Amino acid sequence: MSLMWSVKVVGLGVVAFSLSLELLGWLFGRLRHKRTLNKVLFFPSEVACVEHLFSPNSARACICPLPHGVETSFSRLLCHILSATSSLDLCVFSFSNMDLSRAVLLLHKKAVTIRVLSDKDYSAITGSQIGILRKAGICVRCDGDSAYMHHKFAVVDGRLLITGSLNWTLTAVQSNLENILITEEAELVQPFIKEFHRLWVLNDPARFYKNLISDDEH
Amino acid sequence: MSLMWSVKVVGLGVVAFSLSLELLGWLFGRLRHKRTLNKVLFFPSEVACVEHLFSPNSARACICPLPHGVETSFSRLLCHILSATSSLDLCVFSFSNMDLSRAVLLLHKKAVTIRVLSDKDYSAITGSQIGILRKAGICVRCDGDSAYMHHKFAVVDGRLLITGSLNWTLTAVQSNLENILITEEAELVQPFIKEFHRLWVLNDPARFYKNLISDDEH
Repeated sequence: MSLMWSVKVVGLGVVAFSLSLELLGWLFGRLRHKRTLNKVLFFPSEVACVEHLFSPNSARACICPLPHGVETSFSRLLCHILSATSSLDLCVFSFSNMDLSRAVLLLHKKAVTIRVLSDKDYSAITGSQIGILRKAGICVRCDGDSAYMHHKFAVVDGRLLITGSLNWTLTAVQSNLENILITEEAELVQPFIKEFHRLWVLNDPARFYKNLISDDEH
Repeated sequence: MSLMWSVKVVGLGVVAFSLSLELLGWLFGRLRHKRTLNKVLFFPSEVACVEHLFSPNSARACICPLPHGVETSFSRLLCHILSATSSLDLCVFSFSNMDLSRAVLLLHKKAVTIRVLSDKDYSAITGSQIGILRKAGICVRCDGDSAYMHHKFAVVDGRLLITGSLNWTLTAVQSNLENILITEEAELVQPFIKEFHRLWVLNDPARFYKNLISDDEH
């Protein structure tokens, strides 16, 4: 009888143990799932002050006439860009938004490695920020081969993909219907990292000059 | 001694049982993960014949001069669109690509519920397929309020999101550097479904006429 009781107790122990394992696995899975960021932002964004994102430790409150303390699609986008700590790879067709340019310049000052790929024609239009980034010492390469280098994506710290229909312009942010998708899903991030690398190497000016020299030699 | 042996055997059983549960959980997790589609397509696409996608049961082989039997970014995109069995919600700034128009018309013939949202100005330009879709009896609504209705996304069967930088034009497919992201990730798909619904209701012509009548009455 005592043996039977022991078997029963141990049996119950087995059930309890396996159920706890299952529960732990489920909780762990939920936590892991929560950690993989997947977000969508829609535009046009409300217009609000974003000064606090550029100088979060400033004691002075901003006195501009825009609404303060409002979280918008644009402020969320800025937050994700400013979260970069090691690298920002930016591949964007049109870049004239001064707040986004300020964010990239701020990251550059903080020694975040920035690489910018843009469209050759659009980087030269009035209001483009590409020249300003270049003057600040940021590595910029332009694609002149394709009809349009029409991408609008960024990869933050080789981990976070920001992509969508939104060009980095004021009209896109404040007036157009646009979307931005933000994800850490490796199956989505990795192909963009690979494509950025391919285009970066393809548009290396050194390669262009090497070809010119080799053309001269033959 | 016999009791000790029983406890040991049952103990081993517990370990074996819990390990199998863990293994099963892991395998199940892997399988579930595999089922959630996450893909990225880059453009420009190689140019190849896509006739077989429109008439897969045709006995006659296509005799056009394009390469045959080649899988390209564009053929993959077409496959995903043609996979619709119940609904296709399309929200696209510029739509002039005739193969994509043919795909939408084919789905309409197969009684798939199609809803198309486009930009008012761009739907009227030369080569736009919006008028052709309308004439075929497909529900089309145009946004004239925003600077640009600049989205380029589609939701297939309320399940699969197709979004990116690519407008539904021939230049985008064959000449530009573009991206398309295809995902079943609910956290990404659901916001797009919600936004489509919001814009669809917002651009209901009946609402517009109701407002006109109510303006007349006051």
